[in-house]
Amino acid sequence: MARWKLTIEYDGRPFSGWQRQDNGPSVQATLEHAIAKLTGETITIAAAGRTDAGVHALGQVAHADIEKAFSPDKMRDALNAHLRPHPVAVLQAEIVADDFHARFDATARHYRFLIVNRRSPLTIDAGKAWLVQAELDAGAMHEAAQYLVGHHDFTTFRAAECQAKSPMKTLDVLNVMRAGDDISIEASARSFLHHQVRSITGTLKQVGVGKWTPADVGAALAARDRSACGPVSPPDGLYLVRVDYGVKSTSST
Amino acid sequence: MARWKLTIEYDGRPFSGWQRQDNGPSVQATLEHAIAKLTGETITIAAAGRTDAGVHALGQVAHADIEKAFSPDKMRDALNAHLRPHPVAVLQAEIVADDFHARFDATARHYRFLIVNRRSPLTIDAGKAWLVQAELDAGAMHEAAQYLVGHHDFTTFRAAECQAKSPMKTLDVLNVMRAGDDISIEASARSFLHHQVRSITGTLKQVGVGKWTPADVGAALAARDRSACGPVSPPDGLYLVRVDYGVKSTSST
Repeated sequence: MARWKLTIEYDGRPFSGWQRQDNGPSVQATLEHAIAKLTGETITIAAAGRTDAGVHALGQVAHADIEKAFSPDKMRDALNAHLRPHPVAVLQAEIVADDFHARFDATARHYRFLIVNRRSPLTIDAGKAWLVQAELDAGAMHEAAQYLVGHHDFTTFRAAECQAKSPMKTLDVLNVMRAGDDISIEASARSFLHHQVRSITGTLKQVGVGKWTPADVGAALAARDRSACGPVSPPDGLYLVRVDYGVKSTSST
Repeated sequence: MARWKLTIEYDGRPFSGWQRQDNGPSVQATLEHAIAKLTGETITIAAAGRTDAGVHALGQVAHADIEKAFSPDKMRDALNAHLRPHPVAVLQAEIVADDFHARFDATARHYRFLIVNRRSPLTIDAGKAWLVQAELDAGAMHEAAQYLVGHHDFTTFRAAECQAKSPMKTLDVLNVMRAGDDISIEASARSFLHHQVRSITGTLKQVGVGKWTPADVGAALAARDRSACGPVSPPDGLYLVRVDYGVKSTSST
């Protein structure tokens, strides 16, 4: 038996989210099914980020205990063969220490939210970005974002169904950058609350269109009240970009 | 009556190409149909680049003569409303001089070809890039590309069905750049032959994998023989990025 760390990319559109559930296809079940086809083993995998329906991943990380022996390259290629035709790909497969945990050992999670700010509908990027047709002031959004950086009670930016024990989180990075019509929001933290990035993005959009001042975002945070949050953004532009680990994630082979 | 310059973005996947044809939906017919729905006028539009099936555009340019009067913003928004749900969007609509011609007045066309160079299948970028699983030497590809820059007889890199009178073209820019797993090929010229960028891309890939030397590309050009070309690349990674015009393209209003 070996514990495997799998780095995974997926298009979130056809899935009801990462987590296995009864009401639709999940990335987790798709991957577990590919592992079963390859190894004959029925296992449950754990991931760093339980992304919602429609949320994409460029570097999701999961771990899996697999009896059958493979080289890392063979594991990656064989899983990818069994994942077809689903838009899920294993970018890297590594054997790690037996106590490595994709969710609990993560030291940082990095998300990006892509807004396309223009009048015209999306074509090539449909489903991959949030189209905002009103002109956004990315500088004001960035200024507002800085009220949220640091260790805070994020009750305002937390879904009602969030299962975390505490609303206290440390947001390490929240940058808003414009490049042409594209506005990227980069968010990094050890961990996030449910809908936290989309709640923040929807609130920053209110600043971008001029309905809120940057200071209003600070006041919304201080309110510690879900009803003080702006409208939650759609999932389309959200990407789990990367997950960082400490030394335990390095191969034990 | 006014002559309109339309700057257009599209996802090439559902289309048999730009040009109206009997065997499948075209971008041209989709746009002409939207204009007919908006104005009641049945017109034929001309474009700068007659992109093939599966080729995308970020900045295709077409012109159209329309009797009914609109402001530029209204024309753009109304056409986009009538283009739904097709992945075609008008980015800009401008009134231009009556003798402006999208195809004949273009002074430069800029294409980009995106290769993703990795083992794992594409997910989010499926249909938007060419997956090459063998490791590519982008430096060697760029060196080879420089044999093609300048005024040459491009018979080797021209489709058999190409309708251009002469195989002589001036390639102004052909740059190959790597950023992580992404390899971009940027090609600029006043005009291109049919399949020229895909023929060049497929040939440069032979250099990237080490089957050809850069000098072999120079020899293939000098051969002026279609059979000396490498295998033509798929359309998936090709984008018509921008078309430049001289002074005539500026608004006459």
